[in-house]
Amino acid sequence: MAYVNFSYDVLHQFCLDAFEKFGFSKEDADIIQDVLLLSDLYGIESHGMQRMYRYFRGIQTGSIVIDAKPEVVFDTPVTAVVDGHNAMGQLVGYKAMQLAIEKAKKSGVGIVSARNSNHYGIAGYYAMMACHEGLIGFSSTNSEAIMVPTFGSKAMLGSNPIAVAMPAEPYNFLFDASTTVVTRGKLEMYNKLGKEVPHGWALDKVGRESTNPGYVLENIVAKTGGGIMPLGGNTEKLGSHKGYGYGMICEIFSSILSMGTTSNFVNTGKHAGTCHGFMAINPEYFGNPEDIKAHLSKFLQELRETPKAEDQDRIYTHGEKEISAEANCLKNGIPIIDKTMVEVLEICENLGLDFKKYFGDYKPPVDDYKSSY
Amino acid sequence: MAYVNFSYDVLHQFCLDAFEKFGFSKEDADIIQDVLLLSDLYGIESHGMQRMYRYFRGIQTGSIVIDAKPEVVFDTPVTAVVDGHNAMGQLVGYKAMQLAIEKAKKSGVGIVSARNSNHYGIAGYYAMMACHEGLIGFSSTNSEAIMVPTFGSKAMLGSNPIAVAMPAEPYNFLFDASTTVVTRGKLEMYNKLGKEVPHGWALDKVGRESTNPGYVLENIVAKTGGGIMPLGGNTEKLGSHKGYGYGMICEIFSSILSMGTTSNFVNTGKHAGTCHGFMAINPEYFGNPEDIKAHLSKFLQELRETPKAEDQDRIYTHGEKEISAEANCLKNGIPIIDKTMVEVLEICENLGLDFKKYFGDYKPPVDDYKSSY
Repeated sequence: MAYVNFSYDVLHQFCLDAFEKFGFSKEDADIIQDVLLLSDLYGIESHGMQRMYRYFRGIQTGSIVIDAKPEVVFDTPVTAVVDGHNAMGQLVGYKAMQLAIEKAKKSGVGIVSARNSNHYGIAGYYAMMACHEGLIGFSSTNSEAIMVPTFGSKAMLGSNPIAVAMPAEPYNFLFDASTTVVTRGKLEMYNKLGKEVPHGWALDKVGRESTNPGYVLENIVAKTGGGIMPLGGNTEKLGSHKGYGYGMICEIFSSILSMGTTSNFVNTGKHAGTCHGFMAINPEYFGNPEDIKAHLSKFLQELRETPKAEDQDRIYTHGEKEISAEANCLKNGIPIIDKTMVEVLEICENLGLDFKKYFGDYKPPVDDYKSSY
Repeated sequence: MAYVNFSYDVLHQFCLDAFEKFGFSKEDADIIQDVLLLSDLYGIESHGMQRMYRYFRGIQTGSIVIDAKPEVVFDTPVTAVVDGHNAMGQLVGYKAMQLAIEKAKKSGVGIVSARNSNHYGIAGYYAMMACHEGLIGFSSTNSEAIMVPTFGSKAMLGSNPIAVAMPAEPYNFLFDASTTVVTRGKLEMYNKLGKEVPHGWALDKVGRESTNPGYVLENIVAKTGGGIMPLGGNTEKLGSHKGYGYGMICEIFSSILSMGTTSNFVNTGKHAGTCHGFMAINPEYFGNPEDIKAHLSKFLQELRETPKAEDQDRIYTHGEKEISAEANCLKNGIPIIDKTMVEVLEICENLGLDFKKYFGDYKPPVDDYKSSY
């Protein structure tokens, strides 16, 4: 494994062209690439360019429907339900969050629950859409079951991330995290490196702790039992029931209110059935939004300035790392793993795009990887 | 330490009379006792009768203002800000949640943020108020700083619980948990028993792990550093930043939107300054509420029925334990620790209430305890 850096502009143009070649309109391709690349810019590699091949396959097999139009099936001044009709998750997510934002601007609050969608990228993207409009943003999505409920041995909930963003200076607040202790991507990374995973992450088929990522991943794929622990581990001592509870809150906003597919049935049929939940809250409906923003900014600054643990030199507030990563990537380029570039080459060949036009003389190490999807 | 059982009716009458003697109206006394005793009924001893003495002292010192009237200082059809004017937390909480419920019934959603309040008991009480009206309920409160942010050595956030409730059959869904790995009450319990606390709970003055509950509690009280870890521990490996993030979400709904006191300043002046956040969401604004309730109930049942870990015989859904405990307590009485009964006797003597009238021939072991507050 090695990384190669490409400028944001190059990747942006490639993604735009690729998604247009897939059959999306220029406008839709632009939304999809924006969600995808923000993930890479934020340093969340697992949800960026690395996902392109999976989307490519999803479109080829018909589980993602290119020309599906997400439909508002229930609508009030403060709420809505969107049926994605198996459209690309980013398009469902973008449309649903836009709707939540419009409602919050006009009525103070907007809550939108969406069903029959697909993987929508990072939850934080949609929370930030609201934040950029001066609103508090909330975004969550269910996904294929990987979280084993407390005292269980079978994965029943997804990684079920919850993201919350709120305007602040000098950094916006952005919390974006899976409700499992770690994501599946972390296990995949340890597996690629041939390393055991730390204690407190994963469970085997009968619900015992396992540090073997390959074995756990095989069981997840084959749905033979086991999976990843909730945030808080697998006993109540460290709060397993709490991570499991946050996973349930994600499910309520995503699959329950939309009457959609709960995580235990996501990705079990022709279509994924993924569900999302969105909320936008307008601080103007609580007082002077500038005062509220200043109040949050002050508290965040106090947090950053408090005494550090003896072996630490910095306390982060949520979103700081992402904003630093973004600035760094825009300046120095986005690091892409060479395996992903092998997949990009395959996508170019399939779509009739000229790889060289984007990536010049760079040669992806084709022989080192077989397509692993 | 020993437990003694009293019937719900006895404790109910005692609390009602005691809070009236404190100076509350019959109506207010009834609200306060209801919040307090639901905690004991749910088996959450730390927030029930055991808190009476602390409230008693708060009223005596004037930090809780008996005749303060919580005031709605900002109001829209879907949001409000309440200034508690240092009233009893249960009264601020009850009024604010009632407001959120009214808004959700009329407009679909109600979000209310409250400042200048006091300890309000269990967060779950208010979430359940909404649930009993067929709504999704959310409740959170900040509190005196005990949570050390990731990589820090000083407590900056409270235990900052978040509760979410939603109607379901045969049990309502009720998630109610601190965003710290455990509450301060757990440390107090280990300290009383002279036991070390488990790894992954507490930090000493310089942010190193400590298993000595007495030492950690002393430091928390003296504000000399250290405290309790966020859910997820004190490193990112097990998700410390996630617990810290949920603590921030609590803070946003409680102290930030209300322009109130953030946890790091709660309980540092004459008045506590505690802040709460409430939300009620009406499922009718998403579709048929009976269908939505059935959809959640089905998923909860699927969770309960999935394979158990090899050493476990039951998977709980959130709220099940509380509902079982309530049924058991209503049938067999509520267990109260004898130390609390010593405090109850002292309260009776101070207020001129006849202890015997409520508790008959039971003699609290006065000599075994000095008042520890």
